[in-house]
Amino acid sequence: MAAIEKLWEEVRELSLGTSSRVERLEGPPSPLRFLRDFVSANRPCIISNATLHWPAITSWTDDAYLTRALSASDSTDASTTASALVSVHLTPDGRADALVPRPDDPSSLCFASAHVERMPFDLALKHISNSSSGSISKPFVAYAQQQNDCFRSEYSALSPDVESHIPWATEALGCFPEAVNLWIGNHLSETSFHKDHYENLYAVISGEKHFLLLPPTDLHRMYVREYPAAQYIYSQDTGEFTLELEKPVRNVPWCSVNPYPSLSNEEREISLYPLYFNGPKPLECTVKAGEILYLPSMWFHYVRQSPDSRGRTVAINYWYDMQFDIKYAYFNFLQSIHYPSSNISGSSEKERDSLQSDGSACHPINESNCNINGKGNSGEESP
Amino acid sequence: MAAIEKLWEEVRELSLGTSSRVERLEGPPSPLRFLRDFVSANRPCIISNATLHWPAITSWTDDAYLTRALSASDSTDASTTASALVSVHLTPDGRADALVPRPDDPSSLCFASAHVERMPFDLALKHISNSSSGSISKPFVAYAQQQNDCFRSEYSALSPDVESHIPWATEALGCFPEAVNLWIGNHLSETSFHKDHYENLYAVISGEKHFLLLPPTDLHRMYVREYPAAQYIYSQDTGEFTLELEKPVRNVPWCSVNPYPSLSNEEREISLYPLYFNGPKPLECTVKAGEILYLPSMWFHYVRQSPDSRGRTVAINYWYDMQFDIKYAYFNFLQSIHYPSSNISGSSEKERDSLQSDGSACHPINESNCNINGKGNSGEESP
Repeated sequence: MAAIEKLWEEVRELSLGTSSRVERLEGPPSPLRFLRDFVSANRPCIISNATLHWPAITSWTDDAYLTRALSASDSTDASTTASALVSVHLTPDGRADALVPRPDDPSSLCFASAHVERMPFDLALKHISNSSSGSISKPFVAYAQQQNDCFRSEYSALSPDVESHIPWATEALGCFPEAVNLWIGNHLSETSFHKDHYENLYAVISGEKHFLLLPPTDLHRMYVREYPAAQYIYSQDTGEFTLELEKPVRNVPWCSVNPYPSLSNEEREISLYPLYFNGPKPLECTVKAGEILYLPSMWFHYVRQSPDSRGRTVAINYWYDMQFDIKYAYFNFLQSIHYPSSNISGSSEKERDSLQSDGSACHPINESNCNINGKGNSGEESP
Repeated sequence: MAAIEKLWEEVRELSLGTSSRVERLEGPPSPLRFLRDFVSANRPCIISNATLHWPAITSWTDDAYLTRALSASDSTDASTTASALVSVHLTPDGRADALVPRPDDPSSLCFASAHVERMPFDLALKHISNSSSGSISKPFVAYAQQQNDCFRSEYSALSPDVESHIPWATEALGCFPEAVNLWIGNHLSETSFHKDHYENLYAVISGEKHFLLLPPTDLHRMYVREYPAAQYIYSQDTGEFTLELEKPVRNVPWCSVNPYPSLSNEEREISLYPLYFNGPKPLECTVKAGEILYLPSMWFHYVRQSPDSRGRTVAINYWYDMQFDIKYAYFNFLQSIHYPSSNISGSSEKERDSLQSDGSACHPINESNCNINGKGNSGEESP
């Protein structure tokens, strides 16, 4: 289907440029410029010198400060006791919401969600640091995060250290953030390709985040397929994970492409997903402490991170409602177009067709278009 | 192709609403609101109380004032003599840039452009008024207009009477208008369906303009086909028009649909263009003196007008550069999709295919994407 390939190219020629670099602004743009050049055009940018005035940039490097702040809210007001408990995602290898071999049939894949545990913040911090060193006594990777507006609930004691919203983005978008999420992970945490129905302002506080970005028009290159949902369960007794398929079976549409396959897998992956590996390169960028990435709605993104000197990467992201306008209608249209060679072996014609019109590697809100209420329940990782 | 029909519906459900009304604002929006809710969303609106402060709203109702202003520039400065000559489009029936029977084969159609004559403004005004009454001695309809930035060239003497740009639109779009055109017509002037590669701010000074509007996603409903270009030539001696096909043949892609076929033609037109006549209704609106229509880039529009008490409709439109971004890439993709039943009888498979990837009822700039320099040469009517 030459038309779809031309679309991939044209978006790059017209809008994104042909290099794989993300445009970098030296400081916050005016709301009008942000809206015109980036949001309306659905084009990412990095804003340097965006958050250097936030107390978090310095104070959050101090573990004692963080621990004190988060337990203080615990002791001063009984009604907010829960705020000192934070949600931590535990996985064997740092890959949550990722495709892994099915427990009952390792020759095919399932969509595995992390074991989520609420624990006191100081313990979470210890787990994140310990699990970064690959200690045998802690055979898991911990990632403090929860995409249910967790910063404003679990971490509210830290709210004076950052802005409650990004002023120029709020003015441009005409609304306050729908959710604010905190992410504390280590170098092992990674996020597989997916997209979100939000305009995303992603601020790195310490360490670095590395993004691969693909525009919504590249949909067919992601080989979105349905995978049965599964759940990691971690046993403190045995120190081991089990992976259980959800019952009744629930299928989750997810991107099949792993952009960094292991050497032994590389050839197989390239032959399975040629449209990704042989097509235009994704945009690639690194977001540093003090910078903000504008990650436009519906863009596919894959994320890895480099830790700071304490072995951690800390970030906070602001999800703003997106406009469900003509761009979104065009995307849904594109999604309904059958691209023959993006079929992967093993999925039947029928499966593929039902899939392509039902959803594509994003939050459940996809199904209800403008209803964003379901987002807290998904458990998907979406930085 | 159910996907394309779903696209028509979804744009309406998500963005435009299901009524056929255009949103009306009680006054000029803030630049941010205009950009966010209308330009970015590619959604039209009417702004009431937009230009009531312009001197033109009162002074241009006075023929003596207009004639004096436009001849004054004539007499005071020899170098601007040309400014008193204005371009007038002459047609037998008020339909320029319209599909009419071919002179050599009345069973098929050609794309007929007006006879354009430059004449002193007072004569133009007389012709416009006379030709509105259907006088036998003037067997033509005159329409003073030229889409080559004519207001700033031919009518510069009137520039103090209006704003040189629309301030809130200029701020939103981040640029000044690329062209400003004046239109003085009577009740017979009409403009067939087409689209422009511009953001259009269309201000009515006197009389009323009636628009039918269809979003770019409705492309296949317009049955864009190639028609050989032809030119009206008016002879002052005989008082008659001849219609001559251009030689060598030049094909112009144009919308086939006439939304108001004559009663005797109705059945035939509906059977030829069922996607238009049986699909979702176009948005419909009337723009009055003092109001501005925001006509988004790439929207198909058809225009008629009702005259003021002097038998004339006067309007001025501001063309701003559009962004050639992801929306434009999606449009081109949609255009490349073959929609079987939008084939009209008589056009071969080959013709249709070449057409759908080459252009679609708009200015020549279509072919060069971002090059807008060709616009002055087209002679197409594009309010």
